[in-house]
Formats: sequence, C-alpha cells, structure tokens
Amino acid sequence: MAATAATSVAQTLPIWFDVAVMAVNGLLGAAVARSRSTPVFGTLFAAILVGLGGGMVRDMLLGLEPAAISNWPYIPAVLIGGLVGALLFGRVLKRQSHFALIQGITLGFLVTIGAQKALDYQAPVISAILLGVVTASVGGVLADVTTGYAATIARQGHWIATALVAGSTAFVLVSMWLGFWPAVIVAVLITALLRFISQVRDWPSARWPGEPARGPEEGGAAAARG
Amino acid sequence: MAATAATSVAQTLPIWFDVAVMAVNGLLGAAVARSRSTPVFGTLFAAILVGLGGGMVRDMLLGLEPAAISNWPYIPAVLIGGLVGALLFGRVLKRQSHFALIQGITLGFLVTIGAQKALDYQAPVISAILLGVVTASVGGVLADVTTGYAATIARQGHWIATALVAGSTAFVLVSMWLGFWPAVIVAVLITALLRFISQVRDWPSARWPGEPARGPEEGGAAAARG
Amino acid sequence: MAATAATSVAQTLPIWFDVAVMAVNGLLGAAVARSRSTPVFGTLFAAILVGLGGGMVRDMLLGLEPAAISNWPYIPAVLIGGLVGALLFGRVLKRQSHFALIQGITLGFLVTIGAQKALDYQAPVISAILLGVVTASVGGVLADVTTGYAATIARQGHWIATALVAGSTAFVLVSMWLGFWPAVIVAVLITALLRFISQVRDWPSARWPGEPARGPEEGGAAAARG
Repeated sequence: MAATAATSVAQTLPIWFDVAVMAVNGLLGAAVARSRSTPVFGTLFAAILVGLGGGMVRDMLLGLEPAAISNWPYIPAVLIGGLVGALLFGRVLKRQSHFALIQGITLGFLVTIGAQKALDYQAPVISAILLGVVTASVGGVLADVTTGYAATIARQGHWIATALVAGSTAFVLVSMWLGFWPAVIVAVLITALLRFISQVRDWPSARWPGEPARGPEEGGAAAARG
Repeated sequence: MAATAATSVAQTLPIWFDVAVMAVNGLLGAAVARSRSTPVFGTLFAAILVGLGGGMVRDMLLGLEPAAISNWPYIPAVLIGGLVGALLFGRVLKRQSHFALIQGITLGFLVTIGAQKALDYQAPVISAILLGVVTASVGGVLADVTTGYAATIARQGHWIATALVAGSTAFVLVSMWLGFWPAVIVAVLITALLRFISQVRDWPSARWPGEPARGPEEGGAAAARG
Repeated sequence: MAATAATSVAQTLPIWFDVAVMAVNGLLGAAVARSRSTPVFGTLFAAILVGLGGGMVRDMLLGLEPAAISNWPYIPAVLIGGLVGALLFGRVLKRQSHFALIQGITLGFLVTIGAQKALDYQAPVISAILLGVVTASVGGVLADVTTGYAATIARQGHWIATALVAGSTAFVLVSMWLGFWPAVIVAVLITALLRFISQVRDWPSARWPGEPARGPEEGGAAAARG
C-alpha cells in the first residue's frame, strides 16, 4: 500500500487489518442507512461510501491513486460488511452504547491509518492530523449528505468530531516522540473513550460561549428544516 | 484520452462519442434542475455536475487528471446540452417513460465508458465495476445533493442503482469473454431496459426483507424531512 | 506553489497572499456556520471546507497534490480565521452589505488564484474559467451541503454564481491580452462589484424566461422541503 514511501515495514498496520477496519465501518454505515429506510442498493452504496470514502479522499488529497481502487480486497470486504450490517441492523443499533463503543474503536483505527499514511508520504504534521480526521469522518459525511441528512459531524450531538481531532492529534504527537505502536494504542483509546463516554454520559457537542443548549437529537434534520 | 494505457485503439469509444454522451447527460440534468426552480447559473452548474462529475471522480479515483479538464470540448458541449435541457425542460420531462428510456441509454454508455477506462488502466475487475457505476451515478448524486435533495440513487424509487450495477457487471464480464463491442451492446441494453421497464411497470427499488412497501414518490425529500 | 509549471515568477500572487485569502474565506464560512447553530468542531470543519475546499478540488482536478496539504501554513491560518469568524459572527454578519463586499473581494481573488494556477498547468481556456469558478465556489457548496442546506450557488438568491462566472471569464481573457496584473484587478473588481451591488440593490438571480419571480430568501431550505 505504501510501497514507495514507507521507511520501515514494521511501522504500518498490515493491509488485511486496514481492510477489516473499513469493512466494519461499512457495516456500521449500512446499519444506519437501513434504519433510514434506504433500499437495497442505496444501502450498499452507503456501505461503500462510509467504508471507503474517507480513505479515498485522503489518498486523493495526497495525490495518490486510492488504495481501495488499486487493491481488489477492499470493495468486496466492504460490500460483505454492508450486507451484514443491513441484515442485522436491528441488533447493531439496539444498544446505543455498544454501537458507540464499536464505532469509537473503528474510528480510532481509521484515524491512525489515515494520519500514518500522510506521515509516510511526508505531509506536514498539521496536514497529517487533518488527514487522520478526514479518513475517519468523510465516509460518514458523504453517506449522511447523500441520504438527505446534515452531516453528523456538523450537528449538535454526541462527541464525534472532538474525539477524532483529539485522537488524530494524539497519534501524530505520540508517534513522533514514542514511535508507532504506542501512538496507535493512545489514539485508539482516546478516540474510542471520548466517543463512548460522551454517548453514555450524554455529553452534548462543545458549544460556542453564549450558545443556547440543545438536546443532541434536535440538531440534524431539524436544522436542515429551519 | 487513454493514450498511455490503451492496448488497442479499436477498444475504446471515440472521444466525440464520450463528449456527446456527457452532453446528453448534462441536458437531462439541467431539465431536472430547472423543474426544481433553479436559477440560470445554478442550472448550468447542475449540467456541469451531472454531465462531467461522474467522469471527473472516476479519473481522480484512478489517479489521473480528469479528461474533461485536459480536453477542451467537454465543458462547452455540456454547457450547450444544459442550455437545451433548461429551455426545453417541459418537453424533456413531459413523458416519464421517454425520459427513462433516454436516461437509461445515456447511463448505459456512461457505465461502459467508465468501466472500460478503469480496465485500460489495469484496475482490478471489482474496481472496474465500481468505477462504471461511479461514472454513471456520481454526477446525479452531486446535483441532487447540491440542490438540497437526497440522492435519487439512495432513495425509494424506480430502478437506477440496480440498472447501473447490472450493466456495469455485465460489461466487465462480457468484455473479458467476448471482447469490447459485444460488451458495449449488452451493457447498454441491460442498463437501458432495466431503467425503462422499471419506470413503465412502476417497479419499486429492491427492498430489504420485512421492509414496508413505499410509493416511489415518497422517498426523497420526505425522507430528508422525517 | 507552482514551481514546476510557472513560466514567470512575477505572474503569480505570493503564497502568503493565497493563504490570507483562504483564511478570510474560512472566517466568513465559520461566521455563517455559527449563525446556523453549528457546534464548535463543526464550525471549524466548515471553516476548513470553505477556506480550503475549493483549492483542494481544483488541485485534484488538475491531477496535483493539493497545495493546502503539502504546505503547512494553510490549515492553521484557516483555523485561526475560522475561530475569529465564529467568535465575532454577530459583527461579521451584522451588515449584509459589508459582508457581501468582503465576500465579493475574497471570491474575486480566489477566482484569479484558481484560474491562474490552471493556466500555469496548461489547462485549456474553458477549463481555466471553470477552475476559477470551482476554486471560489466549491468550499461554500461543501459547507452548505454538509450542514443540511441546498448550495447557495444553486438557489434563488443574490448574485454569486453570476459574479464568479463573469470574474473568471474576465480574468482569463484579460490575462491573455493585457497580462497578469490587469487581469487580477479587472477580475476582482467585477466579482466584488457584482456581488456587492446585487446585494445592495436586491437583484435576484437570473431566472429562466417565464419563471415566476421569488424573493431571494425563499429559495434554499424551502426549495429543499418542497
């Protein structure tokens, strides 16, 4: 995947792991899409967007051909993930706290995969942080927008954007000081815990000073309507 | 267009045909945009998105500079198509079955153009199928989303996604077994017929088992609102 | 920024100017996002999209790695701009005519930056005009769509699309006849004046013949709902 630029083979997650994380993200995306009454192919389309969209945009922003196009396992893996997510959506979405935990871990790995690839290709530190966030967020944004919703990341709700920014920043800083593996552990822990705890404790998104409080559920479609 | 990668000149549709197909797609997109009361420049913007968006995204996903940017005829052709579509929108949209047939043929050719270019650039088979679908669908998705609608492809409605997936899969398989021209014929026929018949017979999108039936017209903006 | 392709150093705006223009655009975008009750990180996300999205898409359409990724100053500058815009949004949006003037000047420079880079990389004239418009418009489109609104550029409203098309066309034509600096001046003047005057005089978007007139404010979310 990063053949021309990786300085050390040990410093990248194996490609099968990359594929598995994207398939799980596609699974979660398909479950959400199906809960919005999306038909069969629209749901699989959402799985592709959620699972592969972030990595594709990251690669295009690095001036590369997206790995998910040039390596065949990504698309079938995400389609299988999407199928599972659509068929079991009731179970996947049943307990919000479980969903938040699994999503948090998945997003944590996506953040590390994205930021690491950017560092491999000599992107500046601040760009690597942004590309970690992009890798973990763009897929969901594309799926939200395509199905007619405001992006979750831009709405009042529980912490997603905060978790991604904290996780990506932590990954890049720790990887410069302590190396790759400690950075992976720290970034995944931070991202997953912030996502999970904000859901369980019902923490709202950070608001600007003076902004009236709003319930997390009011944001999206309501904002789109008013 | 595919100078560095095409193995055989006979195996690509001529560039003027490519341009013509995209102009027709821009015409159809402008007609739909105008029926949504989009002002003049917004309508032409929609024509550009619908006509050129799919091919541009396909080329970026292949790591190439989009053909529609490096070759000048695409943009003026699509703008002329968009102008015609906007001025004659009443006639273009008058009979849904005619619209579905013309759109189906156009999408069928876009699928073959997209999948063939991906194969020319040695993309894996599954990626070529996806890029055929991308070439024919992304333009409409961008225009829907930009004008505040959920993407047609992700909604309850008549068969578009199904037609594109079937057409693109057929193109890639037939082109490996029987060569380019039979594949073009089969893919265009399948895409156009599925699109047309689903409209005329009022077939709804494939639903997940246990999903309540919905009229095709209820999906889009309604889903976005509730 | 255009090291491999620029034929003459004098013919490009300096990179710090490029960065400053994008930071101001991010500031305006964050002010609008905050007025739509977007939480903290969503607002900064909007600043990144509005400030950098147009240039990133332009660079990807030229087959280049986006300048805002490979050069570190862009992202922090836009984040600082976004922070200022979010905190002072009341003041930024207080007088619509002032907002329109500042936005018009910013968009005028973005048009020239975008079209000039396209010309530097030997894009055809019509593609350079389109890429000028893309550079100045895509950021706002992405932010609108992500926050659940129809794109301003595709709605009934005051002149934005018209101003961008006129400014970009003027830049490319004047730069071919009279050189770079006169083209910058003409393009910025045309874009800013059309944007400003259309706001002050309350000119609606150009409508297709026979289209019923609509107040500028009715377009967006209303169109998305009906």
